[in-house]
Amino acid sequence: MTRQQEYTTVSDAQQAVEEKLIANVLTSFEGCTDDRLKQIMQALVRHLHAFIRDVRLSETEWNQAIEFLTEVGHITDDKRQEFILLSDVLGASMQTINVNNEARGNATEATVFGPFFVEDAPLIENGGDIAGGAAGEPCWVEGTVRDLDGNPIPGARIEVWEADDEGFYDVQHADGRVYGRAHLFSDDKGHYRFWGLTPTPYPIPHDGPVGRMLQATGRSPMRASHLHFMVTAPQMRTLVTHIFVNGDELLKHDTVFGVKQSLVKDFIQQPAGAPTPDGRELGETTWAKAHFDIVLAPTGS
Amino acid sequence: MTRQQEYTTVSDAQQAVEEKLIANVLTSFEGCTDDRLKQIMQALVRHLHAFIRDVRLSETEWNQAIEFLTEVGHITDDKRQEFILLSDVLGASMQTINVNNEARGNATEATVFGPFFVEDAPLIENGGDIAGGAAGEPCWVEGTVRDLDGNPIPGARIEVWEADDEGFYDVQHADGRVYGRAHLFSDDKGHYRFWGLTPTPYPIPHDGPVGRMLQATGRSPMRASHLHFMVTAPQMRTLVTHIFVNGDELLKHDTVFGVKQSLVKDFIQQPAGAPTPDGRELGETTWAKAHFDIVLAPTGS
Repeated sequence: MTRQQEYTTVSDAQQAVEEKLIANVLTSFEGCTDDRLKQIMQALVRHLHAFIRDVRLSETEWNQAIEFLTEVGHITDDKRQEFILLSDVLGASMQTINVNNEARGNATEATVFGPFFVEDAPLIENGGDIAGGAAGEPCWVEGTVRDLDGNPIPGARIEVWEADDEGFYDVQHADGRVYGRAHLFSDDKGHYRFWGLTPTPYPIPHDGPVGRMLQATGRSPMRASHLHFMVTAPQMRTLVTHIFVNGDELLKHDTVFGVKQSLVKDFIQQPAGAPTPDGRELGETTWAKAHFDIVLAPTGS
Repeated sequence: MTRQQEYTTVSDAQQAVEEKLIANVLTSFEGCTDDRLKQIMQALVRHLHAFIRDVRLSETEWNQAIEFLTEVGHITDDKRQEFILLSDVLGASMQTINVNNEARGNATEATVFGPFFVEDAPLIENGGDIAGGAAGEPCWVEGTVRDLDGNPIPGARIEVWEADDEGFYDVQHADGRVYGRAHLFSDDKGHYRFWGLTPTPYPIPHDGPVGRMLQATGRSPMRASHLHFMVTAPQMRTLVTHIFVNGDELLKHDTVFGVKQSLVKDFIQQPAGAPTPDGRELGETTWAKAHFDIVLAPTGS
């Protein structure tokens, strides 16, 4: 794709200088024998140069960008990934999800994976509790896993994970504790059900350069309240998604742009003492219930 | 600037999803009270998303990009700036120079600053030697500093720096040695002259992630042979540039895209024993001479 841009405040001679440079950089990648890598690098060059020309980036601003990226690199370690955070708050992570998860029929939509998934979360029975002692309002979640034709999918593996009511995932504590995560399998009728916690909003880590960028641009670091799902089944495309809480004021301002309307669900609060679906006694606490039917697309779709 | 792109392999519904996300991200920056920062962030979002959509970036490729940037961050320290190197080899540094140094009349063109300038390089007299004992073929460089109308500029400060014939700048050694750099001033007639070294080609540091990217894409890490200049004078726009060696095979393949035709000069080699301009005795070595007239534009032009 070649696209000529007009920089109307710039002389023809200057535009020629700028375009000549782009042509030279593109040519430098012509010898790349990996066609896909060549395509990516040449597209990167086109868009990067278009950005610099569009904003007429000053040398001071270029220096600030170099310093910003350096800080992002230096705060990143095996516990914290500030480049992913940067990609998230620019919507780049979500756009990558979008281009790789084109909606198929009525299949459930995907959203961002996030940094807090852990392999080998505890197995629970259908109807078990994922909270693992974490603080929060109990929440009953249930639904059915089906294919595009409405046939139930028994034995689908459902991973769920979420933060506690202070906004922390278990892995954000240094002591190795495990809570707010589990996996379970849909039953013979494709049905699943579990106790979790009613999701609450929390900020992404905002004490680093990405947090400073959000502050400088007047943006909030808050994520809309959500509960993570990853659903796998043989011959089915893996679904990575969340469900969000209808009525949450942050739905329109989720700082990583993960919200899709089809993923917003009613979490219906129940008064203390209201009978629970499985007869569990919760004492003097309120609880909530939510329904989430999952539709998986076939592999390769 | 709003620009609609066509992704012909993608359904209308999918394009709508992708464009809606971009609109949401742009909106998130609407509250930014710094107009310039807002302009830059919104343009960055547009071009970044256009890149992801253009190449239909896969989730694996996105992960590889995150890992690459993380490595670039981790190898960067106070001695080595891999983000600048990355900007250089993508032509982004040179494009930034271009947009900030639009050619004015016959003013000398600018090129990249590079990482090897040092403040407080030794002062030499006009006609002195910048080599400081560095190995290489002696080279006599002279010229005149003038304004756009051809009037000589006396007292212009001329900083020059270059690598030795093994391709190393003094600062690349850990022992603090100083060679291949100096500053001098143009004389009453705007004339300057000095002994340096005939420039030789050298690779940018290529043992890190940027070097691996160059190798994976079939690109050379070599820079065309060059001699750095920075020229300052009252009321004149500071000129940062190089001169390049006519005939150098690397002129068309300079890995940071710094070459401009107007900066390519004849370095005329002289046989051993040929009389030197200042009567200096060089014994059995060949030497070279080059001429570089410098034209400065006024400040604010």
